[in-house]
Amino acid sequence: MVEILPSLICADPNRRSDAVRELESLGVDGLHVDILDGHFSPSLPLGIEAVRQLRRETELPFDVHLMVADHDYFIDALLNCGVQRLCFHLEAEPHIDRRLQTIQAAGVAPGVALKPATPLGVLEYCLERINFVLLMLINPGFAGHKGEAQVPYARRKVAACRRFLDKRGAGHVAIEIDGRVGFDNLADLVAAGADRLVAGTRSLFHPEGGPADNLARMRRLAAEGLQRRQDG
Amino acid sequence: MVEILPSLICADPNRRSDAVRELESLGVDGLHVDILDGHFSPSLPLGIEAVRQLRRETELPFDVHLMVADHDYFIDALLNCGVQRLCFHLEAEPHIDRRLQTIQAAGVAPGVALKPATPLGVLEYCLERINFVLLMLINPGFAGHKGEAQVPYARRKVAACRRFLDKRGAGHVAIEIDGRVGFDNLADLVAAGADRLVAGTRSLFHPEGGPADNLARMRRLAAEGLQRRQDG
Amino acid sequence: MVEILPSLICADPNRRSDAVRELESLGVDGLHVDILDGHFSPSLPLGIEAVRQLRRETELPFDVHLMVADHDYFIDALLNCGVQRLCFHLEAEPHIDRRLQTIQAAGVAPGVALKPATPLGVLEYCLERINFVLLMLINPGFAGHKGEAQVPYARRKVAACRRFLDKRGAGHVAIEIDGRVGFDNLADLVAAGADRLVAGTRSLFHPEGGPADNLARMRRLAAEGLQRRQDG
Amino acid sequence: MVEILPSLICADPNRRSDAVRELESLGVDGLHVDILDGHFSPSLPLGIEAVRQLRRETELPFDVHLMVADHDYFIDALLNCGVQRLCFHLEAEPHIDRRLQTIQAAGVAPGVALKPATPLGVLEYCLERINFVLLMLINPGFAGHKGEAQVPYARRKVAACRRFLDKRGAGHVAIEIDGRVGFDNLADLVAAGADRLVAGTRSLFHPEGGPADNLARMRRLAAEGLQRRQDG
Amino acid sequence: MVEILPSLICADPNRRSDAVRELESLGVDGLHVDILDGHFSPSLPLGIEAVRQLRRETELPFDVHLMVADHDYFIDALLNCGVQRLCFHLEAEPHIDRRLQTIQAAGVAPGVALKPATPLGVLEYCLERINFVLLMLINPGFAGHKGEAQVPYARRKVAACRRFLDKRGAGHVAIEIDGRVGFDNLADLVAAGADRLVAGTRSLFHPEGGPADNLARMRRLAAEGLQRRQDG
Amino acid sequence: MVEILPSLICADPNRRSDAVRELESLGVDGLHVDILDGHFSPSLPLGIEAVRQLRRETELPFDVHLMVADHDYFIDALLNCGVQRLCFHLEAEPHIDRRLQTIQAAGVAPGVALKPATPLGVLEYCLERINFVLLMLINPGFAGHKGEAQVPYARRKVAACRRFLDKRGAGHVAIEIDGRVGFDNLADLVAAGADRLVAGTRSLFHPEGGPADNLARMRRLAAEGLQRRQDG
Repeated sequence: MVEILPSLICADPNRRSDAVRELESLGVDGLHVDILDGHFSPSLPLGIEAVRQLRRETELPFDVHLMVADHDYFIDALLNCGVQRLCFHLEAEPHIDRRLQTIQAAGVAPGVALKPATPLGVLEYCLERINFVLLMLINPGFAGHKGEAQVPYARRKVAACRRFLDKRGAGHVAIEIDGRVGFDNLADLVAAGADRLVAGTRSLFHPEGGPADNLARMRRLAAEGLQRRQDG
Repeated sequence: MVEILPSLICADPNRRSDAVRELESLGVDGLHVDILDGHFSPSLPLGIEAVRQLRRETELPFDVHLMVADHDYFIDALLNCGVQRLCFHLEAEPHIDRRLQTIQAAGVAPGVALKPATPLGVLEYCLERINFVLLMLINPGFAGHKGEAQVPYARRKVAACRRFLDKRGAGHVAIEIDGRVGFDNLADLVAAGADRLVAGTRSLFHPEGGPADNLARMRRLAAEGLQRRQDG
Repeated sequence: MVEILPSLICADPNRRSDAVRELESLGVDGLHVDILDGHFSPSLPLGIEAVRQLRRETELPFDVHLMVADHDYFIDALLNCGVQRLCFHLEAEPHIDRRLQTIQAAGVAPGVALKPATPLGVLEYCLERINFVLLMLINPGFAGHKGEAQVPYARRKVAACRRFLDKRGAGHVAIEIDGRVGFDNLADLVAAGADRLVAGTRSLFHPEGGPADNLARMRRLAAEGLQRRQDG
Repeated sequence: MVEILPSLICADPNRRSDAVRELESLGVDGLHVDILDGHFSPSLPLGIEAVRQLRRETELPFDVHLMVADHDYFIDALLNCGVQRLCFHLEAEPHIDRRLQTIQAAGVAPGVALKPATPLGVLEYCLERINFVLLMLINPGFAGHKGEAQVPYARRKVAACRRFLDKRGAGHVAIEIDGRVGFDNLADLVAAGADRLVAGTRSLFHPEGGPADNLARMRRLAAEGLQRRQDG
Repeated sequence: MVEILPSLICADPNRRSDAVRELESLGVDGLHVDILDGHFSPSLPLGIEAVRQLRRETELPFDVHLMVADHDYFIDALLNCGVQRLCFHLEAEPHIDRRLQTIQAAGVAPGVALKPATPLGVLEYCLERINFVLLMLINPGFAGHKGEAQVPYARRKVAACRRFLDKRGAGHVAIEIDGRVGFDNLADLVAAGADRLVAGTRSLFHPEGGPADNLARMRRLAAEGLQRRQDG
Repeated sequence: MVEILPSLICADPNRRSDAVRELESLGVDGLHVDILDGHFSPSLPLGIEAVRQLRRETELPFDVHLMVADHDYFIDALLNCGVQRLCFHLEAEPHIDRRLQTIQAAGVAPGVALKPATPLGVLEYCLERINFVLLMLINPGFAGHKGEAQVPYARRKVAACRRFLDKRGAGHVAIEIDGRVGFDNLADLVAAGADRLVAGTRSLFHPEGGPADNLARMRRLAAEGLQRRQDG
């Protein structure tokens, strides 16, 4: 099954409790939480206190995507919040293997995130340690910037990632994709290999439909994509 | 008059709209907003999107205290939010004079913040450019950490700052104090020279009283302190 | 055709206007401009003001090679100078995809530069965005240092780059080579796959010939190399 | 006597040889050379090769002002160029005393530069090692930026510096000032204590006069200022 | 033959002279020296003065493994100590090719070290310059930390490295392995391709045997592994 | 009484146990331990493991002087070693007040160290938290470098520090001095205000005398200096 993970930063930042309750009642598969520090990228959408507090208000799994310049403080702080999944950018971490161990030792599912231009070879000696790979299909932290669109090589990269994992028997590693997932490309991305979808204003929060309808539409498109993937 | 500025980080991070409405109705003098990036100090209480959104929901002046490792992104982002006052830490800025000009040119009241151990001499060639000095009386970003209490030299530093400003005819520069302002020390700090008080869990949000009573008590103590200051 | 791009840093730094006029009259294909900041490498050959000023004095295309530790200031400054091509080192850039978009959006041909030891795999998800790859065949910024010679794997890397691009149908991406291009290796490098040659004191500015003769010799060797490449 | 030091960055960057010859014939007291790296401030006006080459073409003393983020490469490179005076920013140097020794040991007159907001106390334990203090009266590296003007406390700071030095018997330390020295403020700045003046587009290169007339006017104003200083 | 290189950090830090004399008399093949700076990783086991002094007291070759955040000071300092082999982490060096040249020019055998998660592709354009690759099988600098064990992909990586080198005809490049080499895995690691073994508390310094017995046991296991490798 | 603290880095780095036993039997007042990381300054004399191990072998108090670029790892590591006094450089620490609290909370006497050119004003809001000030009279980490001598303003700075402390009633703060303390200047430095002396090759380890004689001579000179101080 393909998971639908709405992005917390699409909710009103001062009324997130209400927003999360609504998402929970819709039946989404988890909550995608972007933590940026303004250094990794020029954006600081969310404080960590909000995550800590929300963790007490919902049963939804928290799927955290760190986009920060130094992980020392942030990984500790998020593990303390009680999140369920935690990924960080390989490009920003000097001790990749060590961090993955630390996350796993805390009982949290570890993942690694890749920027659009990062080649897949960096995953080679992570496979035994990770639960998922997050592929950014826009430049992380620039979602709201002028001209930022899904990268032209999005499908090519997702498909290559699928092959990379399959070739190495790494069936336990899920592919999560983030960045302009929309009704127009969702089925294709799933067909290419995506297992988890971060949902924002091009899909679940699309202004033309209500969230319930949008979610249903996403599920249909995901099923169609999955069928195409299985058909090869 | 002494201004009372409740700290936004004392509000529930996912229900800030309600909290701010209540503060506004109480008659506080503005909202103190702490922006940290997790690098300057190990803390990330608040995202910038929350500030941008709240700015549309209240008439209260926003008094922003930046505690970040690099100001390039943050000063721009906060000026774009439409805040009324903006201070940054002198210790973290290579081009102090230039930054102060930028803030002023945006029609925002510029201030400088000092960590507890920073001597006052650094203010010497800022006076013409600033509207206020924020003196931290605890280590910035460590408010929630074990053992962190108001520095033993709090009153000594506030009084020295008052003398420093008076001696240079800098009556236009207000002294704002931040860090464990409580019912026990408020009057003394005002007597020593404080003009603006950041209010947290030791005063306005003190659990033993309601906010309205606490605010009234703060105003009485501030008036008493001011009287003592005038009595010399 | 193979392009010959004389390096601006071979000209007298205080009489560049004359030097550029002469190069233009010789019929070179453009001007190669190295911008270093003294941090990326211990060298600062050229100021940006010289580029801005020269841009008004010649019709030659400017082919700029950034070797700087942080691109924020430099990419903006060079785009403002009106250059025609701009490449930066992949190794020094956290947001590769974003930078390439910015350059392209300014109507400038974007390229990426690689240090000698950088493997080619990093090009995988750049191909759709770039006009050229610059391969450094000496360590960037160390041209004038003792013992610095063309790397022993120069031809191997150029040939591998050609194959990498051909295999992916990336015929639109030119290979530019920089570092000790000389009469002795020029034909080989072109035969291996080079499309553009940065010309310095081993070729166009070789002290034993005049620039016109040297240029003619380069063109003959390039044609010979190209023939060998086509002959396979 | 007050020294007049025209700034090299006012000359056409590609025809500096001619410009320097003209300045020499005018009878200026030296050449002020600003070296920036694009990191200390967003500006890179001049390459080091230009300085090395010019050093062979003129007898004028070179008065170098480093505005760079790390001195390791730059101090070595400039000492190798054969400059006469070399100052660096105290704010950017972790081993101030050591650097001053290195410069002095090379037979070059060492100086320290201060940004506008830096207080004078930092000079206390430099006095025995320095030949001059350079006071920046605009933000270093922002000369060409919008809104950048001489700081309002310019005269106050120059006068305070004079008193600071006199009080400590440091008569051997000259005060050099840099930033918007103009016909309107020159005499005042000299009266307040300036010994050396960096000359740019508000004085020597003022577009309304020719350089010879402008220089003569500067000398008259400097003499007037000096007279006022002596008159106390 | 497989080399056995006892790690100097297993010796009592204040009585290393005695320890080294004993190792020398045992007939080990060299001394493995780990230099950390507390920044690359949170560990600072050894000062450089100890290396310099020991170099005068023994004939054993010194095999140095740098784990430092910046190589400028450390490579110079170690070359000055008169070491025989010197490797640094590729992940920490901006000018890989240049550093390898510098080490080689000093008559020292250059190597490169890789952290556990670093893929082998980074070796592609180092082969002509290096004498050995050091593969870390634990996270460098975390040997003493809780939970740190040999990575699960240890054998897979050693074998892949062997194939990588063989495929490129790089028979001159030795594979050195470091991190929890023990009696239980030694033969397997040698069979997979290891040529040099850093020996610590799981092998040579194993508390259950004496050093002489442990060394003999290591040699037997290495011979067995080598036989298996040759048997394919 | 004036304390004599021999510097551990004067001992043979591989036979420190013997050296410390000898110092203990001589009756010195403690052991001065310099921890450098090769980043703060180009020097790495001593590993932390040596300190941990030595702590178990002697009763002497350990007086540690950190000269490192970031304190996070080092302060923790040294506190864990069980040292008695710990000072760090004010110039290298963003959270001075916080660090002093941490050291004190561990039951260790906290101090602050100043480089030669650092003015004394930075001590103003440290006084309540510190047990001692360490004044460096040479550039920290450059003791072994060419031309490095005691700063010409050594006595001036020690005397000014004494007055600074006395004026503020900070009699509990000791002045420790480090850098070329010799038989020629010892009495003067004590007369000027020094309470603790780091002893190296110009005094206790002076090659012309034995350590016992040298120590006795130091004590006589210290007593003489103290007498002169009391005589005013």
